[in-house]
Amino acid sequence: MIKAQSLKGFRDFLPTQAKKRQFVIEKLKSIFRSFGYEPLETPALEYEEILLGKYGEEGDKLMYRFTDNGRRRVAMRYDQTVPLARVVALYEHILPKPFKRYQIQPVWRAEKPQKGRYREFLQCDVDAVNTTSPLSDAEILALVAKSFESLGFDFKIHINSRPVLYHIMREANLPEEKYPTVLSIIDKLDKQPIEHLDEELSHKGFGERFFTEKLQPLLTRRLDHFHNNQTTGDTNLDAIYTYALSCGIAPKHITFNPSIVRGLDYYTGIIFEVRSHAYRIGSLAGGGRYDKLISMFTGHEVPSVGVGFGFDRIIDAMEDLELFPQSVLFANSMVLVTIFSMDTLQTSFEITTHLRKEGISTEIYLGEIKDKNPLERQIKYALARNIPYVVIAGPEEIANNIVILKNLKTREQKQITISNLSNEII
Amino acid sequence: MIKAQSLKGFRDFLPTQAKKRQFVIEKLKSIFRSFGYEPLETPALEYEEILLGKYGEEGDKLMYRFTDNGRRRVAMRYDQTVPLARVVALYEHILPKPFKRYQIQPVWRAEKPQKGRYREFLQCDVDAVNTTSPLSDAEILALVAKSFESLGFDFKIHINSRPVLYHIMREANLPEEKYPTVLSIIDKLDKQPIEHLDEELSHKGFGERFFTEKLQPLLTRRLDHFHNNQTTGDTNLDAIYTYALSCGIAPKHITFNPSIVRGLDYYTGIIFEVRSHAYRIGSLAGGGRYDKLISMFTGHEVPSVGVGFGFDRIIDAMEDLELFPQSVLFANSMVLVTIFSMDTLQTSFEITTHLRKEGISTEIYLGEIKDKNPLERQIKYALARNIPYVVIAGPEEIANNIVILKNLKTREQKQITISNLSNEII
Repeated sequence: MIKAQSLKGFRDFLPTQAKKRQFVIEKLKSIFRSFGYEPLETPALEYEEILLGKYGEEGDKLMYRFTDNGRRRVAMRYDQTVPLARVVALYEHILPKPFKRYQIQPVWRAEKPQKGRYREFLQCDVDAVNTTSPLSDAEILALVAKSFESLGFDFKIHINSRPVLYHIMREANLPEEKYPTVLSIIDKLDKQPIEHLDEELSHKGFGERFFTEKLQPLLTRRLDHFHNNQTTGDTNLDAIYTYALSCGIAPKHITFNPSIVRGLDYYTGIIFEVRSHAYRIGSLAGGGRYDKLISMFTGHEVPSVGVGFGFDRIIDAMEDLELFPQSVLFANSMVLVTIFSMDTLQTSFEITTHLRKEGISTEIYLGEIKDKNPLERQIKYALARNIPYVVIAGPEEIANNIVILKNLKTREQKQITISNLSNEII
Repeated sequence: MIKAQSLKGFRDFLPTQAKKRQFVIEKLKSIFRSFGYEPLETPALEYEEILLGKYGEEGDKLMYRFTDNGRRRVAMRYDQTVPLARVVALYEHILPKPFKRYQIQPVWRAEKPQKGRYREFLQCDVDAVNTTSPLSDAEILALVAKSFESLGFDFKIHINSRPVLYHIMREANLPEEKYPTVLSIIDKLDKQPIEHLDEELSHKGFGERFFTEKLQPLLTRRLDHFHNNQTTGDTNLDAIYTYALSCGIAPKHITFNPSIVRGLDYYTGIIFEVRSHAYRIGSLAGGGRYDKLISMFTGHEVPSVGVGFGFDRIIDAMEDLELFPQSVLFANSMVLVTIFSMDTLQTSFEITTHLRKEGISTEIYLGEIKDKNPLERQIKYALARNIPYVVIAGPEEIANNIVILKNLKTREQKQITISNLSNEII
């Protein structure tokens, strides 16, 4: 006998959890499609050099990579942006311009497992490739808004842009080589008390209260200016903001936030994050414009904009906020058709087939029928599986051309004809 | 610049192909759900020993396995049956009995790549775990029939059972140690001329014309007996067959075929394959009852029955037989809303938002608007992407409160109000 165990950081999704995940995936897909985005799938394994190209040092540590049987160095999918870039380079001549794709696949990272951080997790990305138009940035924002609306979230998209941040850096008289350090500190503004940021900057050789005295006023001024004049100070970002409102994003769902940084350094234009007041453990989605990233495979710029949804966090948040509808939490099946005895089996089959034809998820009991009181066991099974209705057809009912429909929640039961069953089951 | 290349035996699914795959997956899922089967997902990586337990020698050669950063020996998912068995052992106390699950995930095998054989491919399995009832075997057959019906196939399920095969072996006076050899030859009956089978058996030390003279008559007698008396000679298989017909499988879609063997040796009861007259390159699905397999993790028998769909083959067959509906072959979007100029942009946005609200997949043009004749380029884009309708709203139309709807297939165009658009687009 082999000991059944699974690897740390990897998860089995049993039906209750898997159904929630599929519910979210299907909701998102239908929104993506309605915006004209199409599915793309890429392999789990790539040549190592393809993936290391972008994630040099970090990838070195966190990537699952090995030598395959053909002595090739291969690595498991680490994100979906690099495979997208490879696909764009390989098929550039046949892909439409813009190429609007979504991709929902797992990625693997050998991170230290901890709450909310796994070694295998689903990424869910939507990108418009090969378009410089600010309309495409606005469309991505509209798609994001529609997605969170349809999942039932109260949310806000915080937008900013790399040029706005660079402008602030210049206003603070910082030399270019200090930008990364300072930006990484600004990134923490909404997560840590401001004294920590002052402290951290002073450790790094900036003034005593550099954040409070120098950066904070610059950020506040920007924000005030936006609230008074509806302008971010950046023409491109202003255009995207205006288009986003025209696309139908409610003003309460979008705001300018000059302290949004996004960790990844490949962004060149707009950057944004989705947050929810009701769930404050990090952002639910994030993205931006990256005009240069894909050039590492094509040799020329391929201006693009996209978003990544934080899939696991969305699931956690929806559980926390009780956003999953009853139908997802219930079993797949609405009805269990019981088997009274082997003599009445034929009728039970007919009822099952009839209900399935009517589009009702139906189970017929598959356990053995050998007890004295066979129905008791079958009703127990239905209760355990959260199946709301049970149908009983014994010899007496069959003789009278009816069945018993039992609602396990209300405990009510009524006698009706088979053809009326589907009207009663809602 | 990094050379964009992908690994041999691995595939990128661009939108045209990915949409077909998603269409099939969604059809199948909805059938599985209607029968009360629930989704299960397991990790891509498992401890090597978990997977090698079942696939000793074969797995040794074909499994992707390596040492991870924590010095654990790990392997990539090789099938979905072993992970199912591990899950059943780990969660036995909380899983319902029977546990009815489906699982649709990729698996990886380092096979020699060739036409129709890949190193990464999707498996699509449905199993009822922990049930001895022949009703569950019949239900799996009914689910299979419903699945192929809903995909539009003309098909037949060929059923047989291990006990029937062993009975034939005994009738042929073969000693038990010869069963595997002889069964593997019977397995080839529908694929190779009978002389080859005779030859192969005579090479292996059986008589000159062992197949023709000994095995063939036994198989034929079984088959004739079935056609005359509707019995397979095996009570259990007869019961399953009767139940399957009661479940609503049309008699033309199911038959007894005593030469069905199925390669895998873990089957203990019914075995079956799905074939289509119109597409003869192998079977489209196959499965059976395996009462002992899961015991390698649990230490006790867990009687189960299931089916695996040949996903890639189903896609190939559907392409070949032209079973994909037009809607799948078309672009995601039904409509492209054009942009006449930046002055009329607001109206184009409003039309787009309106159509999406009406449930129509709609794109707004995201390319740059700088040509002399901007519409020409936009219509070209719609044609290239197979988008059937184009909406035009220039200053003149806007002044008259109408838009132009152009059908790119018929080349017809008409002037209508925005609120009437969705009625015209079918």
